Amino acid sequence: MRIDILSLFPEMFGGVFGCSITKRAIEKNILDIQITNPRDFAFNKHNQVDDTAYGGGAGMVMKPEPLFRAVEDVKAKTQIENSKVILMCPTGKVFTQEKAKELANFDQLIFICGHYEGFDNRVVQNLADEVISIGDYVLTGGELPAMVVIDAVSRMLPGVLGSGESAPTDSFYNGLLEYPQYTKPREYRGLSVPDVLLSGDHAKIAKWRRQESLRVTYTNRPDLLEKVELSKDDKKFLEELKNNSK
Amino acid sequence: MRIDILSLFPEMFGGVFGCSITKRAIEKNILDIQITNPRDFAFNKHNQVDDTAYGGGAGMVMKPEPLFRAVEDVKAKTQIENSKVILMCPTGKVFTQEKAKELANFDQLIFICGHYEGFDNRVVQNLADEVISIGDYVLTGGELPAMVVIDAVSRMLPGVLGSGESAPTDSFYNGLLEYPQYTKPREYRGLSVPDVLLSGDHAKIAKWRRQESLRVTYTNRPDLLEKVELSKDDKKFLEELKNNSK
Repeated sequence: MRIDILSLFPEMFGGVFGCSITKRAIEKNILDIQITNPRDFAFNKHNQVDDTAYGGGAGMVMKPEPLFRAVEDVKAKTQIENSKVILMCPTGKVFTQEKAKELANFDQLIFICGHYEGFDNRVVQNLADEVISIGDYVLTGGELPAMVVIDAVSRMLPGVLGSGESAPTDSFYNGLLEYPQYTKPREYRGLSVPDVLLSGDHAKIAKWRRQESLRVTYTNRPDLLEKVELSKDDKKFLEELKNNSK
Repeated sequence: MRIDILSLFPEMFGGVFGCSITKRAIEKNILDIQITNPRDFAFNKHNQVDDTAYGGGAGMVMKPEPLFRAVEDVKAKTQIENSKVILMCPTGKVFTQEKAKELANFDQLIFICGHYEGFDNRVVQNLADEVISIGDYVLTGGELPAMVVIDAVSRMLPGVLGSGESAPTDSFYNGLLEYPQYTKPREYRGLSVPDVLLSGDHAKIAKWRRQESLRVTYTNRPDLLEKVELSKDDKKFLEELKNNSK
């Protein structure tokens, strides 16, 4: 997959992409990440990329021309058909694991990262194929959100994760939060690993994990339970949880 | 504010914290960010920080000792009372702008970033004061989520944002998504700035912006409308939107 990032701060990406999953995907030639600075596509001699808002307001707005021209330059250079232009912006639809899976099917993703008060709306409506937010909080720019989306999408590309990193058991793959994990030592500062995990009884362990998964989800994210397919046993366990917490 | 980050990949942070808002907050001495590698607090000679899961499973789990010891070392060195230990983990409660405001009131935040399959549950239950997720997607580690939280919290610290970066109009500050912004040129590739924004009529512009804010929120994030206080005019406008989209 080819990833292009339009950013006024290209130096932000080095540390993150030089590490971990993204680094591995790049080394394996599964991912090719290139960064383009829209400032190189600004019209005037000051390389101006932002200007005041029509109608007034304190902040600066990112101008349309440098972004339109930068995206066109990237598309002309790469000539990749199965491509998507993504604008990172808090007004977009919220990013989810489902969306990560969907985006992993493209051959090219072009991320536009904003700064200042936001984008000229012509960029939002006429240049971006999709507007994505990573959550309900305000960040300084689109760079961190783009890194987040790229990390999540990278993990979905065939060949990126090793066999010991079995994606499917991670939180959100089955719609529930992950069950609690324990490793050595068996006892640490008076806190013990639950006996069932030491029992060697695989059926019992699987049942405990399912129930604890339901418990964590019920406690921290009850909203997720509405979207998940639950067995008869699951429902019974949740009913007990609800009664006990009364 | 003092921020401590526990991470196995300290080199990930340089690019992001060397830029933009965080850099400025550090230079102004509003923020002091230090990174500690839990590997330096591992017991055995291989500096082992992870191990296999009790009860089986493919992934590795982060061991409790290096994290407990690293947090204790940070606390002993800094001696800051109004402090909070935050675990970045997809099983946590979802980060919001409200939470950013709340965290901005602490004098120290200690972030624990995980990798591999997750944390030993004793870290979750007995070391962390709070478990935070930045959204419903799976990432490789807690580093990007910690950067996201730190960026959002930094913006809430007095003196970090300049006067031209008026935080209160940003998306989520009033519970609605931000209205569309436009800047020069007035016409670009046949796409024009809406006349109302050029009218100089401030009342009309304010009304247009409120309605467009409602429209964007209705289209992309109808869930947010349920939590917002709406005026009679707002409700009427939303009613019209609903009828027109039928």
